[in-house]
Amino acid sequence: MHIVKHAEQQLASMPGLEHMTLAGADEGLRALSVWRQSIAGGAATPPHRHDCEEVVVVVAGRGEIHCEREVWTFEAPATLSIPRNVPHQILNTGDAPLELIAAFSATPVEVYFPDGEPLPLPWRS
Amino acid sequence: MHIVKHAEQQLASMPGLEHMTLAGADEGLRALSVWRQSIAGGAATPPHRHDCEEVVVVVAGRGEIHCEREVWTFEAPATLSIPRNVPHQILNTGDAPLELIAAFSATPVEVYFPDGEPLPLPWRS
Repeated sequence: MHIVKHAEQQLASMPGLEHMTLAGADEGLRALSVWRQSIAGGAATPPHRHDCEEVVVVVAGRGEIHCEREVWTFEAPATLSIPRNVPHQILNTGDAPLELIAAFSATPVEVYFPDGEPLPLPWRS
Repeated sequence: MHIVKHAEQQLASMPGLEHMTLAGADEGLRALSVWRQSIAGGAATPPHRHDCEEVVVVVAGRGEIHCEREVWTFEAPATLSIPRNVPHQILNTGDAPLELIAAFSATPVEVYFPDGEPLPLPWRS
C-alpha cells in the first residue's frame, strides 16, 4: 500500500499543461497509472495515442476532444473513455483551467504521436 | 470514444456509501474501470479485496485505510495505491463526505470479502 500526498508530489509541465503523477510503477503498480493534469485556458495536449486504454475524469472546466475524426465537446463533471491506440487531442476551450484526472491501463504509459513517433514525456509515468 | 455526463448517470448505494460508475465495459473498455464514490461521515466500505489493482484519488475529506494489518490515515488531496488481492477497508473518520475517484485495472471489477466469498455489488462495474 502506498499513499501519495499531492502537496509533496513533484509538478512537471509542458507548454500550457501542468502534470502530477499520482500512481504508477513507483507505487508498486503493474497495470495501472493515474495522473492529474491542468490545461490552461486555450491550451491543448499534442495529438497523441497510447498503447493502453485511458479514462479521463473532467473535474473542472470545459473543452473538446478530437478523436476518430470527430469533435466532441464536454464540460465538468464528465468522463471520457478512450480506446487503446486511438489518436486523440484534448483542448481547453474555456478561460478557466481544465482540471483532469486520467487513468491508464498500463504503467509506464507510453505516448506516441499519431504517426507512431514516440512522444517523450517530462515526467515519470 | 465515449463521453459520460455525470448528471445523467445512475447513482447506486450501499449503507453510508453513494456510487457512480464512470467508465467500464459499457464504455468499450477491457482492462480499466473508474468509479466515483462518496462515503458519509463515520461510514466505511466493508473489508474487501479485488482481483486487480486499485488506485483511489481522495478528492475531499479525510479517512483511514486498514490494509496489510496497518492503519494509514490520509486527507485530501492524496492518492492510495492498493495492490491486487490485498484486503482493505476505507473509513471516513471525519464529519464531511469522503469523496473518492477509484480506478481499477480490470472491467468488470470483481469484489470479494477477505475470506474469498464474493461481495455482490448493486452497480455495474
